[in-house]
Amino acid sequence: MKKVEVCYSPALYPYYENREAVVVVTDVLRASSAIVTAFMNGVRKIIPVGSLEEAKAYKAKGFMVAAERDGIVRDFADFGNSPFNFTRKQIAGREIVYSTTNGTRAIHLASSGEQVLIGAYLNLTALVQYVINSDRDLLILCAGWKNKFNLEDTLFAGALAGKILENNNYQTICDATLGAVDLFELARNDMMNYMEKVAQRHRLKKNNLDDVIAYCHTPDLTDIIPVLEKNYLVAVKK
Amino acid sequence: MKKVEVCYSPALYPYYENREAVVVVTDVLRASSAIVTAFMNGVRKIIPVGSLEEAKAYKAKGFMVAAERDGIVRDFADFGNSPFNFTRKQIAGREIVYSTTNGTRAIHLASSGEQVLIGAYLNLTALVQYVINSDRDLLILCAGWKNKFNLEDTLFAGALAGKILENNNYQTICDATLGAVDLFELARNDMMNYMEKVAQRHRLKKNNLDDVIAYCHTPDLTDIIPVLEKNYLVAVKK
Repeated sequence: MKKVEVCYSPALYPYYENREAVVVVTDVLRASSAIVTAFMNGVRKIIPVGSLEEAKAYKAKGFMVAAERDGIVRDFADFGNSPFNFTRKQIAGREIVYSTTNGTRAIHLASSGEQVLIGAYLNLTALVQYVINSDRDLLILCAGWKNKFNLEDTLFAGALAGKILENNNYQTICDATLGAVDLFELARNDMMNYMEKVAQRHRLKKNNLDDVIAYCHTPDLTDIIPVLEKNYLVAVKK
Repeated sequence: MKKVEVCYSPALYPYYENREAVVVVTDVLRASSAIVTAFMNGVRKIIPVGSLEEAKAYKAKGFMVAAERDGIVRDFADFGNSPFNFTRKQIAGREIVYSTTNGTRAIHLASSGEQVLIGAYLNLTALVQYVINSDRDLLILCAGWKNKFNLEDTLFAGALAGKILENNNYQTICDATLGAVDLFELARNDMMNYMEKVAQRHRLKKNNLDDVIAYCHTPDLTDIIPVLEKNYLVAVKK
């Protein structure tokens, strides 16, 4: 039997770390949804970076860079971090740099696992099949918000864990997984209404960026899965 | 307006720390329930200690000591950590030392707050009234399990936060609080059934210690609230 665990924050990762596991990193609003969208639209490679300084250094070397903080595109950047920025016209065939504080830290931590995948509702069913085919433990790492628990990543973790646990080869004794599955079951039939109360929705709304929420909760727009190779992401299909 | 936050693990405390807040530490199965029970039965003072070495040192100085690991009473100790050990006959008027790894760390961290209270279902309504009378922010710190999220402390946090948020002076924008409230609402009408799946129940059952679960989920057996003074706990009434 393989096990499923959910880690609610990068700060808790040391207590969940599992070198045998496939680690799915999720940051539903918005980094992981944006990264999946970029691959849907033909990007060749994404280099996730943590700091704006790193993003600037890549820009100086000629890379296209997505970088914003608190919803405001940085002046050196080509575009902001919304999935809507990654249009086929802009990025098909390109290598881009994506600056995301929570997401990059999570991806870096996750790299101690056997394989790192980027998860979002957009590629949910593909992820499920890929993980089951891997025949490995699953660890879902929520990027969270500045190391705090957040609901949107937890709900996604519950959606993914719930599907995986339907497979007889997987089980869990992880309370965080059980809690996430229950919260997703509670929210799933009226997700947009449930999202009304979530803290990140209020942060996005302040900058008129909450138009991404419905899109980021749309399941199965693609079967592409971004995977980490060295320090960059490329696409595989399930 | 005062705010309510829930911290799911001692390892996340730095991100929730609030020096203005009343901090309620909870470790429902079993430390906080045992501590409340001890005060119900007339203990005068409880010194929580983290390591067995500290507990031994206190024993050598003549203190009564409760100490166990993995459900087995340590040979130097007077009794184990179950609330059922703290009978009036054993402890009334005494000072005792209680050895608990998760609980002691949580209490130590919480001491950066304005005041530290010990919370359990046993004193739930008294806590609600005490916190509201304090007119301070509320931070609920779950002791968790070896820094991991656990369901039983989260459900209690949801019970307490939900009651506090009924008061117009309190609000929350904390996703962990919203999640805890939702999980408690889901579980509350059939708590013992919900507890079937919780990891700590399985750990206790292995040592035939799961008889405490129903007791530890009994609301309002007392209006006593253990509070931290220096390095020990004493009782106040709401």
